[in-house]
Amino acid sequence: MDIIGLTAQDKTRFFSGVKALPIELKAKITSIAKSFKKLGEDDPRRLTHSFKVGLALSLVSLLYYAKPLYDGFGVAGMWAVLTVVVVFEFTVGGTVSKCLNRGFATFLAGGLGIGADYFASLFGKKGEPIVLGILVFLLAAAATFSRFFPRMKARYDYGLLIFILTFSMVAVSGYRVDELVLLAHRRLCTIILGGATCMLISIFICPVWAGEDLHKAVASNLEKLATYLEGFGGVYFPSCKDEGTGVNSKDGNGNSLFQGYKSILNSKNIEESLANFARWEPGHGRFRLRHPWKHYLEIGALARQCAYNIEFINACSDSDIQASEEFKSKIEGPCSRISAECGKALKALATSMKTMTDPSSAKPNVENSKAAMKDLKFALKAASTENADFLAIVPAATVGSVLVEIAKCVEKISEAVHELSERAHFSRTVEPTVSPEKPPQLLHRGVIRPASDVTNDVHKNVVITIHEISTVSPENETSGQHQVPKPGQV
Amino acid sequence: MDIIGLTAQDKTRFFSGVKALPIELKAKITSIAKSFKKLGEDDPRRLTHSFKVGLALSLVSLLYYAKPLYDGFGVAGMWAVLTVVVVFEFTVGGTVSKCLNRGFATFLAGGLGIGADYFASLFGKKGEPIVLGILVFLLAAAATFSRFFPRMKARYDYGLLIFILTFSMVAVSGYRVDELVLLAHRRLCTIILGGATCMLISIFICPVWAGEDLHKAVASNLEKLATYLEGFGGVYFPSCKDEGTGVNSKDGNGNSLFQGYKSILNSKNIEESLANFARWEPGHGRFRLRHPWKHYLEIGALARQCAYNIEFINACSDSDIQASEEFKSKIEGPCSRISAECGKALKALATSMKTMTDPSSAKPNVENSKAAMKDLKFALKAASTENADFLAIVPAATVGSVLVEIAKCVEKISEAVHELSERAHFSRTVEPTVSPEKPPQLLHRGVIRPASDVTNDVHKNVVITIHEISTVSPENETSGQHQVPKPGQV
Repeated sequence: MDIIGLTAQDKTRFFSGVKALPIELKAKITSIAKSFKKLGEDDPRRLTHSFKVGLALSLVSLLYYAKPLYDGFGVAGMWAVLTVVVVFEFTVGGTVSKCLNRGFATFLAGGLGIGADYFASLFGKKGEPIVLGILVFLLAAAATFSRFFPRMKARYDYGLLIFILTFSMVAVSGYRVDELVLLAHRRLCTIILGGATCMLISIFICPVWAGEDLHKAVASNLEKLATYLEGFGGVYFPSCKDEGTGVNSKDGNGNSLFQGYKSILNSKNIEESLANFARWEPGHGRFRLRHPWKHYLEIGALARQCAYNIEFINACSDSDIQASEEFKSKIEGPCSRISAECGKALKALATSMKTMTDPSSAKPNVENSKAAMKDLKFALKAASTENADFLAIVPAATVGSVLVEIAKCVEKISEAVHELSERAHFSRTVEPTVSPEKPPQLLHRGVIRPASDVTNDVHKNVVITIHEISTVSPENETSGQHQVPKPGQV
Repeated sequence: MDIIGLTAQDKTRFFSGVKALPIELKAKITSIAKSFKKLGEDDPRRLTHSFKVGLALSLVSLLYYAKPLYDGFGVAGMWAVLTVVVVFEFTVGGTVSKCLNRGFATFLAGGLGIGADYFASLFGKKGEPIVLGILVFLLAAAATFSRFFPRMKARYDYGLLIFILTFSMVAVSGYRVDELVLLAHRRLCTIILGGATCMLISIFICPVWAGEDLHKAVASNLEKLATYLEGFGGVYFPSCKDEGTGVNSKDGNGNSLFQGYKSILNSKNIEESLANFARWEPGHGRFRLRHPWKHYLEIGALARQCAYNIEFINACSDSDIQASEEFKSKIEGPCSRISAECGKALKALATSMKTMTDPSSAKPNVENSKAAMKDLKFALKAASTENADFLAIVPAATVGSVLVEIAKCVEKISEAVHELSERAHFSRTVEPTVSPEKPPQLLHRGVIRPASDVTNDVHKNVVITIHEISTVSPENETSGQHQVPKPGQV
């Protein structure tokens, strides 16, 4: 014990606590640094964007540092800095829309503000602040209210905000500042300067196009659905894993691939905001000025519809009712074919979107899935067993009808992508090369019809017709369209 | 023909054109005015909000009009106007979060900016702009990058924006302006003044609480699901419309009620932003400061899950396959009971949330729906017919299994609401009044078991047990909790 009453143990504890603190701090800093690194690795464009903002700010601050520029603009150069910070968005469309909104709103509100000031000055020195106050109140209330219009909110929300801002500032400061027109002129000039800097940097230095992001996002959503559907047959009907239907559930990190579709469920807002920004973008790469961006939203909505069905099928699969293996085996052929063909069709549609080529290669798959739907109907009609326990049949029957709904959805998606390809003038060049790795695919399509209506043993009297249809494999027909786009190409 | 070469006909056409223009214009103006009126009628708080913004702006512009105030702040009063316009949001939480973000970010960045200026001045007149430029570049890039963190984006996005803004402005203008500290001090004061005005007006004049909106939105989503489920049995199994199961599809404007659930599918973003704002709000009414807002998101997610199932059942119902009426009639009892009981349970849960009372009144309904699920299993086990056409059975079987999934979901929702009621300390007062309009409800719960396993005519050899269970109606047990809240109460 020393003078302040601490035992040796207390001291050890205290000092080890002091030592432990920096270690904890170090661990925290390391974890933050790691998450920073991950954030950058997930999408390197984020890093580029940050540097672009820094660059724009440094450029604009030249207005202050350079003597001739400062003499021209004075303290108003501050507005350029403000504009850059507020206006610079991640995508080109976002930046352009904010710049244009800000520019036009400032111009309009500045003019109106000067007019309001002149009008108020007619009422004498005493009446002026009252009239100005009423005008500011009315205009601000009206503009705020119109921000609630959904269409206004989607496109011109920022413009309305700046309109209120500029009008109030010009009208109010006009009461004290004499050189109002000069002030408004300088402000507009610096805002245009700041906005132009942002637009040029965001368009010409590693641009992030909202339109391209939308295009890729919708295509990748279709791919996620395809991954699930292609794997589904192999998981739900394990016996047909190695058949010729192309079902393969061992897609590397299997489980995470099956969860991919979940992100589609809540994709509406992202898609809508991207489509909204895309409209402001100039033509770029393979997208012209009037690209049918709105049409992507329709494809996105259909993909969501499909994802809802998959979400349901997923919830069903952990049901506590034991499905009848006998019944399952009867419908497994058509069912796994529906899901495999739907998956292939979606993959073909996604590839066609990514490469912006004719999506016709998905048509055979859609037709095959329709045929498989018919087969499923026949199989169900035929699959009457004596000892039918309906309880055991329900789970498999449900999966069958969900797959039918999914197939209908996929057909609609195919139609929508075809319409998009027409509106957006996807190229129709079909390269004649034949990919050698994949042999022409044989589709075993079996139709089972009962010979008599009700008999004691249906199985013996069934006429089984199996067509061996050698469909032209979509890979062969349009192999040139299926290549994965090169990194710089998309 | 007159001198300028116009026939009488031309003239008539011209003048009617001139007259027509104002009529079209008038029609357009009328339609705009009508949509304005509708916007205000849909949610009158929008109108109040607009007037509140106008009021806040008028108050703040006093800084300019009143001589003593202007002498104190000078042109910096402009920042108060800017703050009001940018910071005033529809909900209290939104306004408070933006005010606090703006205040703290300005304070922090102002301090750092002054420090950066001092640091740069050490490098002499030539080195100063270079050092400042590098500092602005680095800090802006780092802050922009950290805006990509999902957690930062959700809560402090605006603060980070203002941080970059203020730091750049202070650091840059420090190069030219001498009284930097005075400028920063004035700016901070006016921002605090503007922010305080906004907060006070938004809290004390007709406040719109984000938390209350979230609370109501989640409860009303449960109600929408309940409306669909209560009506479903009557629509899908028309024969049981007038049974004692309480199914009633004639809910006034029937069809639109059935579409109500669709808005739930995409409710995630709204709920998340409301929950985020709600955290910034002070305690108000029945919500204390640490109300479990996050828990509402869990209930919301479960409600969405339920809505996905309903979306699927809706898509199924326009199937082209004719369902077997015989099979349908066998499962219609349990099925319509499941949907009716689920609907009642959800309605009771929604009412309990709205009135913030104990949600136990939903428990009997949840138990009944579980019992109905068991009945459905028995019915399916028993419903073995000789002449089974599986194709005709599938649609009804699918509906049955979707209803089972929905019932499971409703059970989870009930558990989540119970947990919420515990965490948020819902009141447990049970008023002893018995509502006289509704007689105790009789639930016909029938269990059908086959006597022998497989026979030629199953119907004759079935033992049908019908229990007449007089469950204590939830309306009687806890009638005090079921009253619709008064307008001012919620």
